[in-house]
Amino acid sequence: MKKLMQATENGQRYELYSATAMPQAAAFLWNKVMMIQQNCRGYATAQFMQPEPAKYAHAPNLEAKTFMQPEQPYYAHHPGRFVYIKDENSGEIWSVPYEPVRREAQNFVFSAGQSDIRWQLTLDAGLTVEWLLTLTPDQPLELWQLTVRNDSAQSRSLSLYPYFPVGYMSWMNQSGRYDADLKAIICSSVTPYQKYPDYFKNKFLKDKTFLLAERTPDFWEVNQQHFEGQGGLHAPSAVQQPFLGCGDSDYETPACVMQYRVSLATGQTEHYRFVFGPAYDKAEVAQIRQQVFGTPESFGQIQQAYAAYVAQAVPCLVIDTPDQELNNYVNHWLARQVYYHGDVNRLTTDPQSRNYLQDNMGMSYLAPAVARQAFLTALSQQHLSGEMPDGILLHKDAELKYINQVPHTDQCVWLPVCISAYLAETNDYALLSEKVAYKDSAELHTVAEHIHRAMGWLWLKKDERCLSYIEQGDWCDPMNMVGYKGKGVSGWLSLAAAYALNVWAQICRDLNFHQQAALYQQQASEFNAAVNQYLWDGNWYGRGITDDNVVFGISKDTEGRIYLNPQSWALLSGAANSEQQQQLLKAVEQQLHTPYGVQMLAPAYTAMREDVGRVTQKYPGSAENGSVYNHAAAFYLFALYQVNQADKAYQVLKQMLPSDDPQDQLQRGQLPVFIPNYYRGAYQTLPRTAGRSSQLFNTGTVHWVYRCLVEGLFGVKGDQQGLTLAPQLPASWSKASVLRRFRGADFHIRFERVADVTAPTLWLDGVQQAELVVRNITPGQSYQLLLQLPVITSEGTV
Amino acid sequence: MKKLMQATENGQRYELYSATAMPQAAAFLWNKVMMIQQNCRGYATAQFMQPEPAKYAHAPNLEAKTFMQPEQPYYAHHPGRFVYIKDENSGEIWSVPYEPVRREAQNFVFSAGQSDIRWQLTLDAGLTVEWLLTLTPDQPLELWQLTVRNDSAQSRSLSLYPYFPVGYMSWMNQSGRYDADLKAIICSSVTPYQKYPDYFKNKFLKDKTFLLAERTPDFWEVNQQHFEGQGGLHAPSAVQQPFLGCGDSDYETPACVMQYRVSLATGQTEHYRFVFGPAYDKAEVAQIRQQVFGTPESFGQIQQAYAAYVAQAVPCLVIDTPDQELNNYVNHWLARQVYYHGDVNRLTTDPQSRNYLQDNMGMSYLAPAVARQAFLTALSQQHLSGEMPDGILLHKDAELKYINQVPHTDQCVWLPVCISAYLAETNDYALLSEKVAYKDSAELHTVAEHIHRAMGWLWLKKDERCLSYIEQGDWCDPMNMVGYKGKGVSGWLSLAAAYALNVWAQICRDLNFHQQAALYQQQASEFNAAVNQYLWDGNWYGRGITDDNVVFGISKDTEGRIYLNPQSWALLSGAANSEQQQQLLKAVEQQLHTPYGVQMLAPAYTAMREDVGRVTQKYPGSAENGSVYNHAAAFYLFALYQVNQADKAYQVLKQMLPSDDPQDQLQRGQLPVFIPNYYRGAYQTLPRTAGRSSQLFNTGTVHWVYRCLVEGLFGVKGDQQGLTLAPQLPASWSKASVLRRFRGADFHIRFERVADVTAPTLWLDGVQQAELVVRNITPGQSYQLLLQLPVITSEGTV
Repeated sequence: MKKLMQATENGQRYELYSATAMPQAAAFLWNKVMMIQQNCRGYATAQFMQPEPAKYAHAPNLEAKTFMQPEQPYYAHHPGRFVYIKDENSGEIWSVPYEPVRREAQNFVFSAGQSDIRWQLTLDAGLTVEWLLTLTPDQPLELWQLTVRNDSAQSRSLSLYPYFPVGYMSWMNQSGRYDADLKAIICSSVTPYQKYPDYFKNKFLKDKTFLLAERTPDFWEVNQQHFEGQGGLHAPSAVQQPFLGCGDSDYETPACVMQYRVSLATGQTEHYRFVFGPAYDKAEVAQIRQQVFGTPESFGQIQQAYAAYVAQAVPCLVIDTPDQELNNYVNHWLARQVYYHGDVNRLTTDPQSRNYLQDNMGMSYLAPAVARQAFLTALSQQHLSGEMPDGILLHKDAELKYINQVPHTDQCVWLPVCISAYLAETNDYALLSEKVAYKDSAELHTVAEHIHRAMGWLWLKKDERCLSYIEQGDWCDPMNMVGYKGKGVSGWLSLAAAYALNVWAQICRDLNFHQQAALYQQQASEFNAAVNQYLWDGNWYGRGITDDNVVFGISKDTEGRIYLNPQSWALLSGAANSEQQQQLLKAVEQQLHTPYGVQMLAPAYTAMREDVGRVTQKYPGSAENGSVYNHAAAFYLFALYQVNQADKAYQVLKQMLPSDDPQDQLQRGQLPVFIPNYYRGAYQTLPRTAGRSSQLFNTGTVHWVYRCLVEGLFGVKGDQQGLTLAPQLPASWSKASVLRRFRGADFHIRFERVADVTAPTLWLDGVQQAELVVRNITPGQSYQLLLQLPVITSEGTV
Repeated sequence: MKKLMQATENGQRYELYSATAMPQAAAFLWNKVMMIQQNCRGYATAQFMQPEPAKYAHAPNLEAKTFMQPEQPYYAHHPGRFVYIKDENSGEIWSVPYEPVRREAQNFVFSAGQSDIRWQLTLDAGLTVEWLLTLTPDQPLELWQLTVRNDSAQSRSLSLYPYFPVGYMSWMNQSGRYDADLKAIICSSVTPYQKYPDYFKNKFLKDKTFLLAERTPDFWEVNQQHFEGQGGLHAPSAVQQPFLGCGDSDYETPACVMQYRVSLATGQTEHYRFVFGPAYDKAEVAQIRQQVFGTPESFGQIQQAYAAYVAQAVPCLVIDTPDQELNNYVNHWLARQVYYHGDVNRLTTDPQSRNYLQDNMGMSYLAPAVARQAFLTALSQQHLSGEMPDGILLHKDAELKYINQVPHTDQCVWLPVCISAYLAETNDYALLSEKVAYKDSAELHTVAEHIHRAMGWLWLKKDERCLSYIEQGDWCDPMNMVGYKGKGVSGWLSLAAAYALNVWAQICRDLNFHQQAALYQQQASEFNAAVNQYLWDGNWYGRGITDDNVVFGISKDTEGRIYLNPQSWALLSGAANSEQQQQLLKAVEQQLHTPYGVQMLAPAYTAMREDVGRVTQKYPGSAENGSVYNHAAAFYLFALYQVNQADKAYQVLKQMLPSDDPQDQLQRGQLPVFIPNYYRGAYQTLPRTAGRSSQLFNTGTVHWVYRCLVEGLFGVKGDQQGLTLAPQLPASWSKASVLRRFRGADFHIRFERVADVTAPTLWLDGVQQAELVVRNITPGQSYQLLLQLPVITSEGTV
């Protein structure tokens, strides 16, 4: 099969060579206030914050406001960013990048970069086009540049039509006009509302959408219907005419279309630059014109500023392994995806508490000061009872929305679990002495006290068997009907509570709070014992016990027979003894492994199970219902490293990333520039769609992948002593090296399997070390480390 | 200009001859549980009740749930009902009726009938196609019939592909499969939700969408994306192949497509019948198969049953006037549109109280028993205080939604105003003695007592000047910020209160409650006096006084200088003396009249006026902001008859209906089968779009048009004596005749202007009458009436 894509420029850019083979393939850019996912064919999904997520380009009907959906379907009139190109001599019409004309270019490259998205097309012999998107660091603006070059022997007479559909803006008020002074099309609307207090809420919304051009267009059109005419989007009537009609839009669906007529001599190149985005008023558009086109250099300077903005996501790990795909992803894309989450909190004003904590766990590796502040913010919204809220409000007008209105019982778990990674990375135990108030009490208590109370809450919310109540749901699964009557319990949450208590006990020991540590450890043991008593099914752990006292996720279930999370967390919490470990690993391998990753439950439910809940109604193989839910798979990965299953872990890690194998790329429909929240599962029953990417790049997965690389695969975790080396390289790797940026110093570490070495041996700057630890780290210093490792054969260490 | 459409079969059917000239032109069908608006090109908007409005065919993205929107934009992937037709020899492809291929047929007829919608196309010489839609009386099902006929000399080899897009059903669960046993494509989904109580609410929703075929298809496709392929909707890849792929949809956007390969001999005709709609489960689809295709006659029998269902809307007026357009509309379409409102209450479970009362005022002429029950239902939700709620709940699970969550102050006005028409039509004064409870009190009181309390509420909610508080709004205008601080008053509502009190006073007199009648009349006078004191602006009445004591809707305003409603209702309430009447009529004529009707305010607002509110933010010329809002125009019409302005009234009436003039049809974009809620206004500033129809057939307008025909134009109103004749024919009519169905009898009335008659003279069965009244009406009897009228010249009566 033809190669579909490849990484270039040391993996900092991925290129796709066909618009048709993977029609869903997309890349995304973000800054502090906006996000744009740009599909290879030209379709786009963009949102910005004011403070709630808002759109400036819409579907041509009334779109529901919702959280981001997986597997978003595109269709002819979906918002996008296109350029029609007409050869004025032949009358031939293309659209760049591909939609809506769908005429194939001779060459097509969709190129996802760190801070730009670019298409390079050869339309026909001699006519090449580049279409380039960048953002600004801090405004909801898209910067577009069109470059057209004639390499043929004849001059070419062309019309170029940038086409930015704006869509159905509002049933109250929508229109569009060309403004000659600003060289801009400005579309106006009023966000619809019915209750007068909403007028004051909406008053300063950016209700205008504009397309600002550097160069004066020859003609334009603002009326979607007049533009399309009878020709339709694939052959718009207005493009078939010599000149656009220069029409307006009055309560009609607006569009931003401009026409440039240009004659290109042999070898001539022309650039056209545009800004597309929302604005409050015309004055703001004028200001943006000054900012972006004020001098000939302004546009390029902003592009550079944006590249610098993205480059803030400096990885704490730069790797060189035998696995080139892994190198590319880890060195260029993983940190970028982690940073995106911590930087903009998924473009919401009320991130789920567990997401907020985990996103900032990832941020601990890239921007620990941001993570620190986020942990304090989260704790300031904790209740005095110890209970954590379901979402963290990040804006004074923010409200809990969507799933955050449903109470979940797991939120406290994530405090020690996420903060432990921060402490390991930074050694900033001072955080635990910071004083923070509560949501319902101005009284200041230390962070440690807050976490004590959170642990107390977990210990409180259990039944007489010492199993944690699930109520309307815990992490990850919309298992909203297991325990809504108040009796049902969660096996996973009981194990997660045990793990959280153990993690917190360890931190207490670090702080020399040995009495508390002992207490928490005892509580953890009791949770573990209860899970073993009530939920061990012989070969694996059940998922929970319903309100009606029915254990589920066990061998007698025909659907939802085994869940991944309880197995992973039994490994983490210490519930599973070594025999149980072997049994459950085998059960996972037999029942949950698929060619596209590890499913979070199997077999997928095909009908509602009223004593489990909403997860059983989701489409089999999609979302949580039997999908390869990467966030769950990442915990399995983390647990595998915990129990030293290096090779198994490497296999799970590899499955999270689409590879360079064309068959795999086609199946998953995605560039390897991010890990999606899920791949479709139900591999046995729905093989046609199994492996397909959700295309959704919001996922806690990446933070755990980062933590697994640091703590597991490369074993370069921090602790109170310094940097301890404990890699778990796959047996097949004979060597690898990493740059580990840690506490201000650079560690250049080579791993080598050496035939005559029987135990890991560390060399620091050429000197053999007694322990696998580097102490007394000096910021700014560069350390050269060599870790010699035993060779592993199929029989084990030689 | 070419004729665009015409009425056929005595106006019971309207035909449009071009799919391109009026792309928005649409017709609608309804039954008790569903509504479908079918656009001439094939696009469709359909909803059914379960009990809230729901869809079974969706946009290919997540559509917002909302009340029906005006000027709905269509686009390539909008839901629709189409048939692709491929000539297997030439490879030529058409789509019926027009979208998505947009290949012009040699002949095109879109034919809106009373109980069906039909297209007749000649695709090329000899190949004709009919595509026909009917409903059933009581289920949410569409019955479609495709008839293909070969009139050419050669046999034709064709593939026929009915294509029913289903769209994006749900982010939780969606799929589609062909069921060979049922000859049906069944698409499944789960209505998305997040809170567990919603599971129980949604449990029995009809979440499946099916296409059921009478004949077994040769091939099929259920996957929208596989159907389209690279070809796109205008040239689907699957249609370009010999056979559809028989694919499934798994969490992908589903579609219902079937393929029939047929060879048509010369003169051969083939019929294909389909049912499209929602269902709860497969068993229900099987049941529907039995119902619709159980015998060869079943389908036709249901079509007949549906025709009979619609024919229940028997007009109480059948007219024969010199105005053929008016005859067609009144005899065939007006009663149908009125009946639709009263029959299904606009397909909502919480109609606005004022709408519910007015819709049933219209029903008084067609099905008085329905109206009677509705009045009792409305009063049973009145508060003991007299206050009426903002919406009437028609289902046990119904809630107040959208604008019904904003309190309005006018609801009490409509009780006497609407019930007076019912009483005039039926003489059923017994209604007033019926006993009904209150929402907040089980105590039973008579209807009369309920209305006394409603009048008391109107009298209570006024300020020290005797002007009615407007609070967050009154009828018709989203003037939500005039009085939200509690001080602002409404000129219109003060006049409406006066009118309501006068109407109720008259009914009290009819009941011999003279003391109460005098009191209400006194209160009405005080309202009128206050309006004259504070709101008469010299030539017309102002609209209100804001919280900050600013009078608006007056000559010093540059926008919203004059509002129609206060002028109309000052004529009705008696506030305007005859000099004022002349002045305000002139002001309306000068400032509000346009070629497309009377605007409800002028000049339209172009920017928010914070002391008026949301109406000022609506797009100029659209919805209420300076549009020709027909409901307001209908009250002006009613008022004009009240003050005997017959010719002016006829002009206003004529403007409500698009005429047979092609220029007018094009401008308004609508068939004359219903009156829309508005035509665009702002004629002076936005002439391009002025006159355009909202395409929205939900409007109280029609009930008032009916009342105006009965009480004004033809003057055949009932009262306690019987039938009193007082026509206000336009001067230009020398004669007219009507069949008036009234209290069980038929009145055949001829109106004739006779040169030597100076005062109206009535002949009953050839006998001249002393008064213009028919008393002692015998149900079942047929009366022959001749009313001789004076000739009117431009100087007045001769």
